[in-house]
Amino acid sequence: MGLFSKDVHTLDDLFVTTLQTTYYAERRITEALPQMREMATSPELRQGFDQHLRETEGQIERLERVFRMHGTEPSEATCPAIDGIIKAGNSLAGDIEDKQVLDAALTAAAQMVEHYEIAQYGTMIAWARELGREDCASVLAETLAEEKATDAKLTQLAERRLNARAEMA
Amino acid sequence: MGLFSKDVHTLDDLFVTTLQTTYYAERRITEALPQMREMATSPELRQGFDQHLRETEGQIERLERVFRMHGTEPSEATCPAIDGIIKAGNSLAGDIEDKQVLDAALTAAAQMVEHYEIAQYGTMIAWARELGREDCASVLAETLAEEKATDAKLTQLAERRLNARAEMA
Repeated sequence: MGLFSKDVHTLDDLFVTTLQTTYYAERRITEALPQMREMATSPELRQGFDQHLRETEGQIERLERVFRMHGTEPSEATCPAIDGIIKAGNSLAGDIEDKQVLDAALTAAAQMVEHYEIAQYGTMIAWARELGREDCASVLAETLAEEKATDAKLTQLAERRLNARAEMA
Repeated sequence: MGLFSKDVHTLDDLFVTTLQTTYYAERRITEALPQMREMATSPELRQGFDQHLRETEGQIERLERVFRMHGTEPSEATCPAIDGIIKAGNSLAGDIEDKQVLDAALTAAAQMVEHYEIAQYGTMIAWARELGREDCASVLAETLAEEKATDAKLTQLAERRLNARAEMA
């Protein structure tokens, strides 16, 4: 969500503002993911971050497509929510030495990012439909499906760690 | 997630830190909800914020119970993620004059808060299980179920607005 809300008068303005803040957020996520990958130890988690980086690049292209379908040039608007989420992840993960504990913190940070995106895309899809733009909604829905799949994969990773621990016990 | 990660060495430390940041977040949410309620126009949305405020108060009590089950005194740790999410909601909703558009923005802001909570509680439940604390996990799971139900209700509100518009057309 943006800092330029003075210009928001209609649901269409709100839709465009949220496209802009999500565009900003996806770019911030592409900066954060390689750093998270470097900190991760588990091969599955590293692979997950690699895959999510490729997906995020595709999601940025989709957002650019939706901007153009709407008749607007792609542009960014600062989103304090994603800034805070990335800051929280960095401050939590920053000083953990134990590799397994660090992986757990990175998984949690990634899931918070996923849930931010699930909320944003869910909202934009509802507004696109309300605006009669099923074409925009269906492009955004492709990304929402990817985000939900990534969140489910991160949950599986956390559960697998739990099962591995149970087997060791 | 907290700013005091220097003290995080084990998964148990990570669990307690996340309890602390979520405790901080729930208190910030109880401050934000009455303001959101005041800005809302739709009776269903106002009612939804009232109900969520009551639920949040119960969720704070549950967190205090989990702290004590764990053998730790309840305490807060700043969470830049919820700070950013609340800031984003305020800056988006702050200057919208049209009542219906403002309700849409408030619904979106509330769903972002819900998804933050869904991510936090999901993570804490997984860690509680990994730590062999099924007792803590089951208390936290009660809150997670409430958060998911609230998110579903907010989605229904958005869809009902869409149907009302379709009937008017």
